[in-house]
Amino acid sequence: MCILGNKWKPIIIVTINDRTLRFGEVAKSINLISRKVLTDQLKEMKNDGLLIREEFKELPPRVEYSLTKRGLALLPIFHLFEKWEEEYLIEEIVQ
Amino acid sequence: MCILGNKWKPIIIVTINDRTLRFGEVAKSINLISRKVLTDQLKEMKNDGLLIREEFKELPPRVEYSLTKRGLALLPIFHLFEKWEEEYLIEEIVQ
Repeated sequence: MCILGNKWKPIIIVTINDRTLRFGEVAKSINLISRKVLTDQLKEMKNDGLLIREEFKELPPRVEYSLTKRGLALLPIFHLFEKWEEEYLIEEIVQ
Repeated sequence: MCILGNKWKPIIIVTINDRTLRFGEVAKSINLISRKVLTDQLKEMKNDGLLIREEFKELPPRVEYSLTKRGLALLPIFHLFEKWEEEYLIEEIVQ
C-alpha cells in the first residue's frame, strides 16, 4: 500500500471520484488539508499514474484534475473500506 | 483509513490472516520490520480491536496473536487491493 502512503490520498481519490475538479474545488471539499500538502499529494499522485492534471493557459490559469483508469479502479475498494468502517463503528457504539 | 495509518498494519493483517501466530513468527514473516516497530504496531492494533493478544504464563512466556472478526473483515479488501496492484503493475511493464 506504499502508493497510498498516507491518509490524504484515499480521501483525494474519493473526493475527485468520476468528476473533473479544479484545484480550488478539491481544496474546498477537503477543508482540513493545507494547500501546500494538497499540492504535494496531487503531484505524487500524478507521477504514480493515479490522476490526470490538465493545465489551461488562460488568464487566470486554470488547472483541472481527474482520475486515470488506474485511479478510478480504486474507488470500489475504498467504498468497501468505508462500509467496513461504518459496520464496525456502529458495532462499537452498540456494545 | 486512519486506523491503518501506515504501511505495516495491512502487511501484519495479511500475514496473520486466519492463523494464530507467536510474536517471533510474525516477526520472521515480515523480516524488514524491527521488533520495536512491530511491538508498537501490534499494541495499537490490539487497542483498535483488530487483533487478539493472548499471553500464556509459561516459562519462557508465550504470546500469540490472531485477528478479531473486525480484523478478518479487512482481508477481502486487502486482497482486492493486491489484485489492483498486480493488474496495474503489469500494465506499466507492458506499456
